[in-house]
Amino acid sequence: MTDQDIAGLQRRLAEFAAARRWEPYHTPKNLAAALSVEASELVEIFQWLTPEESARVMEDADSAHRVTDEVADVLAYLLQFCEVLGVDPLKALAAKIERNEERFPAP
Amino acid sequence: MTDQDIAGLQRRLAEFAAARRWEPYHTPKNLAAALSVEASELVEIFQWLTPEESARVMEDADSAHRVTDEVADVLAYLLQFCEVLGVDPLKALAAKIERNEERFPAP
Amino acid sequence: MTDQDIAGLQRRLAEFAAARRWEPYHTPKNLAAALSVEASELVEIFQWLTPEESARVMEDADSAHRVTDEVADVLAYLLQFCEVLGVDPLKALAAKIERNEERFPAP
Amino acid sequence: MTDQDIAGLQRRLAEFAAARRWEPYHTPKNLAAALSVEASELVEIFQWLTPEESARVMEDADSAHRVTDEVADVLAYLLQFCEVLGVDPLKALAAKIERNEERFPAP
Repeated sequence: MTDQDIAGLQRRLAEFAAARRWEPYHTPKNLAAALSVEASELVEIFQWLTPEESARVMEDADSAHRVTDEVADVLAYLLQFCEVLGVDPLKALAAKIERNEERFPAP
Repeated sequence: MTDQDIAGLQRRLAEFAAARRWEPYHTPKNLAAALSVEASELVEIFQWLTPEESARVMEDADSAHRVTDEVADVLAYLLQFCEVLGVDPLKALAAKIERNEERFPAP
Repeated sequence: MTDQDIAGLQRRLAEFAAARRWEPYHTPKNLAAALSVEASELVEIFQWLTPEESARVMEDADSAHRVTDEVADVLAYLLQFCEVLGVDPLKALAAKIERNEERFPAP
Repeated sequence: MTDQDIAGLQRRLAEFAAARRWEPYHTPKNLAAALSVEASELVEIFQWLTPEESARVMEDADSAHRVTDEVADVLAYLLQFCEVLGVDPLKALAAKIERNEERFPAP
């Protein structure tokens, strides 16, 4: 397994979509909606669990697989969204952390 | 700006949360909910736009900033969620892409 | 079919949940999460459609059934959420419309 | 305060939108997205609360107002969505409850 870095994954996702002629569907608006739908599928796994049960979700093989699968889907749409709009997600997060460290100094 | 790789960002997010004693709030259930809330804030930017307008969202400085900011928030909660559950998001996505390439061969 | 008014539906939903001993799961937090998950399932139906296609979604019997089913799920969780917190949803909306009519006078 | 029934509220929402010439924006796709965004704003109120804290959310006047306001927003978009697609939300829910009572008999 190679190309696990962000840029490599983005390239593979773009090739996958292009081969299936999905680009017309991949507007930023649609990709944002798809991202939120996948995030909700992650929430669904936890919706009736107590906080304590939610912390043990990886102990069950089926739940663990479901969680990992939904994480992949969320990341897939986030990366495709960033790709079509030219946003660098790691740079965006690094900048945000720096802003937050200035705005909310640790007690 | 250093530590922009995934593991570095996860460490900075963990330190930020620990310094503010937020760990008790960061259950997988709560982090999944927070992730979905941030994904919806991304959707909100696009909700009344046409597909064409949505493709030009980065041309306006304010919208571009809002988009970048929400991408950072989505990624922040995704990485924190993965951290507390021990999920490797890049590995999860790489595995999913491989599965999809087998299941849905390109036409 | 009787009891289709809001109060009647809320009573039937409460009886349904009580008979299955689901009350402990029906915290306001969990019901809000479930509501948002169902709202996302509604979004999912439309996520790759153009605005024009989305306007014709009831012409296909399968899509029409899916839409109606998700509307039912969203309303079910909204009513159960309101029931456990003692919120009157119709009164809340009427009050909001009045506030909006004052705040945003028609041009 | 009159017209608090569902049909009356739908008429007032439709008049409000028409007076501001919002109809072109109110595609089923956009209204479903707006509904999910409002549902997430409801989730946001609860995202860091324990189950116990979430049950006491109406005791604080500010939280109570926020909850009521978001309930109104969710219901507003649900009713507008149903209006543009010709779905009767109460009938949809009554039918679903009947189906569920058959499919999942009480123990």
